Amino acid sequence: MEQHKNESHTQTSLPLSPFTQPIRCIVKLGGAAITSKNELEMINEEILQKVSEQLREAMVASSEKPPGMDWSKRPGASEIFCNPEEFGDHSAIDCSPFIVVHGAGSFGHFQASKSGVHKGQLNKPLVKGGFVATRISVTTLNLEIVRALAREGIPSIGMSPFSCGWFTSERHISSADLSSVAKAIDSGFTPVLHGDAVLDEIQGCTILSGDVIISHLAAYSKPIYVVFLTDVYGVYDRPPTEPNAILLKEIAVAEDGSWSVVKPKLQNSIELTVAAHDTTGGMKTKIAEAAMIAKLGIDVYIVKAATSHSLRALNGDLRSSIPDDWLGTVVRSLR
Amino acid sequence: MEQHKNESHTQTSLPLSPFTQPIRCIVKLGGAAITSKNELEMINEEILQKVSEQLREAMVASSEKPPGMDWSKRPGASEIFCNPEEFGDHSAIDCSPFIVVHGAGSFGHFQASKSGVHKGQLNKPLVKGGFVATRISVTTLNLEIVRALAREGIPSIGMSPFSCGWFTSERHISSADLSSVAKAIDSGFTPVLHGDAVLDEIQGCTILSGDVIISHLAAYSKPIYVVFLTDVYGVYDRPPTEPNAILLKEIAVAEDGSWSVVKPKLQNSIELTVAAHDTTGGMKTKIAEAAMIAKLGIDVYIVKAATSHSLRALNGDLRSSIPDDWLGTVVRSLR
Repeated sequence: MEQHKNESHTQTSLPLSPFTQPIRCIVKLGGAAITSKNELEMINEEILQKVSEQLREAMVASSEKPPGMDWSKRPGASEIFCNPEEFGDHSAIDCSPFIVVHGAGSFGHFQASKSGVHKGQLNKPLVKGGFVATRISVTTLNLEIVRALAREGIPSIGMSPFSCGWFTSERHISSADLSSVAKAIDSGFTPVLHGDAVLDEIQGCTILSGDVIISHLAAYSKPIYVVFLTDVYGVYDRPPTEPNAILLKEIAVAEDGSWSVVKPKLQNSIELTVAAHDTTGGMKTKIAEAAMIAKLGIDVYIVKAATSHSLRALNGDLRSSIPDDWLGTVVRSLR
Repeated sequence: MEQHKNESHTQTSLPLSPFTQPIRCIVKLGGAAITSKNELEMINEEILQKVSEQLREAMVASSEKPPGMDWSKRPGASEIFCNPEEFGDHSAIDCSPFIVVHGAGSFGHFQASKSGVHKGQLNKPLVKGGFVATRISVTTLNLEIVRALAREGIPSIGMSPFSCGWFTSERHISSADLSSVAKAIDSGFTPVLHGDAVLDEIQGCTILSGDVIISHLAAYSKPIYVVFLTDVYGVYDRPPTEPNAILLKEIAVAEDGSWSVVKPKLQNSIELTVAAHDTTGGMKTKIAEAAMIAKLGIDVYIVKAATSHSLRALNGDLRSSIPDDWLGTVVRSLR
């Protein structure tokens, strides 16, 4: 069993956190899970709706579905989707403090890669155009996700990192105004952030991935657990499409950030799935980011979206013990 | 000729402005001009496109239309609208520093009024739902406006006041992080803000109107001029639908903020147009806000969108003198 050194930048002392109340969970909606990978700007509506339902089940204590909060027309429709009258004298809805972050999938990727936004050089017209085009694409997806959550009665609020004052310096976060996110949480809303094109102090601009956003948010807001919803059952020892790929069920992270596979017991060193299409970092990056979060004492679950396994992860049912029939990867610190 | 006292809160000493370069113009796209008033969430595409063209003509020095920056699919379409290949080795595009702010028109109004978001009480489920629904509706409009501008080659960037850290206290702006807006300008982008539902320190939440946003931005960024694009030719002495309504062509603002009609010479005190549907303030509020801006030495033009008159205003052609054949209202300080 090989030890993997976490090469990410180590956590230095953090400024005061603006979060005044404990966050229960940060959820990453993976781009590959909620969009159709092979078609430009196509949402996987079925998965997105199921994910939204599971989030509502995990967040809202009441068994009754709360009234929908998307009172806008759907494209092509002449009537609004939800009915505000449903609220009537509806009593207050308790909604757990969750933060949602989503990736881009088939939104944004074409625009970003066509122009090389991640490499900077904003003075080039193509890069500037690509920056604008990328933001249009990812905010289109953000709006659709906010609407899907709102239809389930989750008080979702779209918050773009660009607008929230997230800046990078040589592609690492140099500043991020978390107070807007914290205030939204304090007011009972569910912030929905996303991978975004942002300004970079050194190279002009770059792409800030959803995974990096989650690491940063986790460090400041210290959620009880973090769930990554993906399009596969978790992290495998080789590309999951290969025969005999083994699902890594438990990864332990040491204090120095190095990590090792605890379950199942493996004979050989592992080879990790790196999706070629993923410019912001594939599965190896994901483990590295997950390890950084786990190092803070936060359990991380990497699980297939819209399955019974993801619902258990979102509910926090895996906190005490991981049932044998649960499919997914847990990344947590050695205790 | 009656003197009107400006009753708005007077400007106190301002913290340091984050704007490092001079802003040429702040433009308000009035909700009534760019949406169809009588139909829920319906954009007036023809006007929006014409407004976008005029903005491009005013902002981009080159006579050649720059390549489009909206590389996303239009609803229902399977292909992207603009072609990134058009950029080729396109030389740098000089784009004047403009800030765009738009109203809500038939977006957001239904959701806000149905729930009373402007009155606060976020603990009520209906208000919380209305807050989410209002933001969905106004950000939908914002995205469409950003896309219309981007298709004209304007490097537009949507920035929601909620996300940018704009907060109110008893409905007056208590904080607004302008540094993201300033950095977007410094990087050559055109920020596009909008009237939005925001958190209020005293009453929980409220609606922040586009006009109030413009006043605030103007005070800090000190643009050379401000243009309000509306659905009528300017400010009239009575509702413009009434026979014999007279267009007020010039309003002078004194140092104390009081204002008076200079042109044409009127016999009687004026009655102002107040649109009944406008919950965030009608024409009287508009003059008060315009007067507050003019007091800072900034010329304000209130003009009908998508006309030859609006193009002249956007170009800044009215700075030296107002031609007799120009239709619109100028609000400026007594010099």
